[in-house]
Amino acid sequence: MGDDAPTALDLPPVDPLPEHTQAYFDLCAEKIGMVPNVLRAYAFNIAKLDAFSAMYNELMLADSGLSKLEREMIAVVVSSENRCYYCQAAHGQAVRELSGDPELGEQMVMNYRAADLSDRQRQMLDFAVLLTRESASVSESHREALRSVGFSDRDIWDIASVAGFFNMTNRMASATDMRPNREYHSRNR
Amino acid sequence: MGDDAPTALDLPPVDPLPEHTQAYFDLCAEKIGMVPNVLRAYAFNIAKLDAFSAMYNELMLADSGLSKLEREMIAVVVSSENRCYYCQAAHGQAVRELSGDPELGEQMVMNYRAADLSDRQRQMLDFAVLLTRESASVSESHREALRSVGFSDRDIWDIASVAGFFNMTNRMASATDMRPNREYHSRNR
Amino acid sequence: MGDDAPTALDLPPVDPLPEHTQAYFDLCAEKIGMVPNVLRAYAFNIAKLDAFSAMYNELMLADSGLSKLEREMIAVVVSSENRCYYCQAAHGQAVRELSGDPELGEQMVMNYRAADLSDRQRQMLDFAVLLTRESASVSESHREALRSVGFSDRDIWDIASVAGFFNMTNRMASATDMRPNREYHSRNR
Amino acid sequence: MGDDAPTALDLPPVDPLPEHTQAYFDLCAEKIGMVPNVLRAYAFNIAKLDAFSAMYNELMLADSGLSKLEREMIAVVVSSENRCYYCQAAHGQAVRELSGDPELGEQMVMNYRAADLSDRQRQMLDFAVLLTRESASVSESHREALRSVGFSDRDIWDIASVAGFFNMTNRMASATDMRPNREYHSRNR
Amino acid sequence: MGDDAPTALDLPPVDPLPEHTQAYFDLCAEKIGMVPNVLRAYAFNIAKLDAFSAMYNELMLADSGLSKLEREMIAVVVSSENRCYYCQAAHGQAVRELSGDPELGEQMVMNYRAADLSDRQRQMLDFAVLLTRESASVSESHREALRSVGFSDRDIWDIASVAGFFNMTNRMASATDMRPNREYHSRNR
Amino acid sequence: MGDDAPTALDLPPVDPLPEHTQAYFDLCAEKIGMVPNVLRAYAFNIAKLDAFSAMYNELMLADSGLSKLEREMIAVVVSSENRCYYCQAAHGQAVRELSGDPELGEQMVMNYRAADLSDRQRQMLDFAVLLTRESASVSESHREALRSVGFSDRDIWDIASVAGFFNMTNRMASATDMRPNREYHSRNR
Repeated sequence: MGDDAPTALDLPPVDPLPEHTQAYFDLCAEKIGMVPNVLRAYAFNIAKLDAFSAMYNELMLADSGLSKLEREMIAVVVSSENRCYYCQAAHGQAVRELSGDPELGEQMVMNYRAADLSDRQRQMLDFAVLLTRESASVSESHREALRSVGFSDRDIWDIASVAGFFNMTNRMASATDMRPNREYHSRNR
Repeated sequence: MGDDAPTALDLPPVDPLPEHTQAYFDLCAEKIGMVPNVLRAYAFNIAKLDAFSAMYNELMLADSGLSKLEREMIAVVVSSENRCYYCQAAHGQAVRELSGDPELGEQMVMNYRAADLSDRQRQMLDFAVLLTRESASVSESHREALRSVGFSDRDIWDIASVAGFFNMTNRMASATDMRPNREYHSRNR
Repeated sequence: MGDDAPTALDLPPVDPLPEHTQAYFDLCAEKIGMVPNVLRAYAFNIAKLDAFSAMYNELMLADSGLSKLEREMIAVVVSSENRCYYCQAAHGQAVRELSGDPELGEQMVMNYRAADLSDRQRQMLDFAVLLTRESASVSESHREALRSVGFSDRDIWDIASVAGFFNMTNRMASATDMRPNREYHSRNR
Repeated sequence: MGDDAPTALDLPPVDPLPEHTQAYFDLCAEKIGMVPNVLRAYAFNIAKLDAFSAMYNELMLADSGLSKLEREMIAVVVSSENRCYYCQAAHGQAVRELSGDPELGEQMVMNYRAADLSDRQRQMLDFAVLLTRESASVSESHREALRSVGFSDRDIWDIASVAGFFNMTNRMASATDMRPNREYHSRNR
Repeated sequence: MGDDAPTALDLPPVDPLPEHTQAYFDLCAEKIGMVPNVLRAYAFNIAKLDAFSAMYNELMLADSGLSKLEREMIAVVVSSENRCYYCQAAHGQAVRELSGDPELGEQMVMNYRAADLSDRQRQMLDFAVLLTRESASVSESHREALRSVGFSDRDIWDIASVAGFFNMTNRMASATDMRPNREYHSRNR
Repeated sequence: MGDDAPTALDLPPVDPLPEHTQAYFDLCAEKIGMVPNVLRAYAFNIAKLDAFSAMYNELMLADSGLSKLEREMIAVVVSSENRCYYCQAAHGQAVRELSGDPELGEQMVMNYRAADLSDRQRQMLDFAVLLTRESASVSESHREALRSVGFSDRDIWDIASVAGFFNMTNRMASATDMRPNREYHSRNR
């Protein structure tokens, strides 16, 4: 795929892309000025790309008691814990954009404990980090702590889902040396 | 949901289930004698259930250079690393069934290094464990090691995908205290 | 010792075995249908075998405020923490047999936090895990926590002794690649 | 037991001690000027004391391809890894005495990698530390490394036994807050 | 000190500042548009401020076989390892400025293994991380590895000094919740 | 530098030493009977030696709410955590000398939790260890805990400074294999 390959694996995209994929990529290019490399990486197999996109969109964009910003904050904090370059770059930008607060994006990357957060958001991120570091030790007391700051059981599911999802994608990105699009770095600074 | 709830969260299933979901659950009951609790847990939201099932089926059942048994071996070893009770129970049973070797299932749960594995399978599992423990340290030398025992770049993608996926589901299961169906324990012993 | 050697070390048993050892092995074969490989492994040196057996029997079978099942639960949980294949296999079977509850044996192997335990047993196992992971941090507050759920000072000694003992044998087994007798896997399922 | 109690547990010694125990304690007092507190701690139960002493003497004093000094070096290095105060104090003194080299005793306590050791002894201690830290990862390559510097399979057993034993006693001492006799600190400086 | 306090400690600066300090602060304001908060934090005690500044300037600005950029790269990588918010923010900016490569700054913060580095710089950073994580395990082989890519013994001293220094300042910053000047975030993007 | 070189690096001292350095070394020899090897190690570059000495003297000898003994206790506990041979040897001796209690010195080296400390000193050392192990997790609650046992904000700065400083020097010593003067071992026993 040349210098522009999205990963270190030799897995070129299906050529030509099926119509619905091409349309999706065109939409990305139009709306955000690039096709995120994670989509280009998956494009060697359209069934896998579709399954990934469906799950991603359901988690990050569908209705939830968590705001989109909160879901992106979880994404970055988990990715920082796992030191995933791709996901910190891409979702750090998302936090900067959704919050309008560039410092907040940096704090999620560098050490979320340095941010001035509400109790709710601090508990949410502490739980995401616990899940990331030592999931086997989660107990009812941790769920109770989330409920005590106002999260519903459905919200707990969503926190766990987003934290879990980035524990998956961080590993996909690190396993394949996935490269973030350069555009992420300079935006919303 | 009563004593039979699949998790510690109060998230009852959609009632009635949509037709395609009911048909899927009926098929499970018929073919494997139970509806896996992970499906019952997701059934509070059909869009999430469908996204999960689509990704699961694509990863574990679709065409791959990895055999179904190898994918299940990765599942159990990752789940053992994360000490996920649900996934060790359910996928340990799958290894016993697919391999016809109950000891192999136990070894994947207890310590895969004790199993008498081919170089190929040992490297595959070592990589899955490295990804699980410290994904940020993966480098080209690790990918080269996989290639040197015969894995293609597509196979490397699949190893990473399965390892990544169980790093997600292990955390969902631990976050929600998901309970494995009791049937798993006694089968294929 | 051929394919049937109990460890990876070339340490054949004394031949012939002294009378009291042969009698002990015969008794094992009669009562439990096998001579546990740990005994066969030690049989290259009868003084060491006798010292090991004396300590083992004193710890696991002599009078104690801990039931035999509780001592076996500690054995498995410590062995799971250390990922010792031999001891998880052998003592996991013991938990299944003594409890009549195969699931409990699986939970001790996979993640004891998933089991539905009394406060007493949960504290006992938490202490055994703390001792296993980071013994230097034990303080009076941990002993007080055990006393508060009804353990006497003698019981605390016994919990520590059993946890300590399996921290020894786990390392012996892993250092020598000790193989569990196959009979363990299928029993009491 | 008053201020002089050997541990934080209320487990006074059998009173009067049986004749063979009193004779053993008298011998200690005569030969080394004290009764080691570990023996006083076990004296609440003579069967346990006898089992402990038998195993200790077999391991540390009986015939072996390892010198007594080498066994004490393993004892201290394992105890330093586990930060066991009792065992570092008591066996650090033994290293100073047996080697006639007070600095060597300090190095075993502080960081054995700072000592100027033969390849044989360095490999021996590296293996003891690996067993202590992460026994589940021991493999044939580690045993081969020991064989390559001249250790026999019997020696490997003995290294593992001593390292294993101190992983037990370190935990007994930390669990019970066992106090080393003060005499250890000033001797052989 | 009001909202603008550089740390969470109540340690107001000497007032008025001595002449040489005021001159230094004025120079900072003129040259870089701010007085770095670390200097304001130390200004409660001029002897401490002077000792800190002298060591900082000697390490980061004096003659060395390491370029100023290389020293800043070490600073950020160590600070990322320790997740120090202040030092990642301040020295990440320095890497962006000195290199003219904003992506390089991000990579040092997020995961230096993702950067496309020379062997020399990769070895330098690997050594800095080893020193940060587990300094007791450094051995002659690590120094030899540095020499083999062209570092002199003096360079090794300087790598260790810079890595050591940020292991100190990271802890000062985290202990006191030191806040980076906001100017760092937006510069050199 | 011959057998007597203070480190494994080939960095001979400036020759002749400048007058103020020679005077300082002569004073050391007169007052404490040796020139500490850390000073000899730095003597290849007088600017670095002077910066190091100035910071050291400011931290360890200047006015502070912490006694000199308390500062040395922090030094040893941090150095034990990092397993730095040089600093445990040199500052362990200082604790023995300043306290007149050889056992206390041993406890700081072996496991400070075994010492019979005041609440104040235990909290001080717990904080130093937390800073050493996982500085990014320090929060206001930890500073509050220090205040609650009587430490002022200035004292907190000093605890952090001393703990931070030894996190630097431990790494310098380990990176360069710095050797403690032999005199340390036998003094104040």
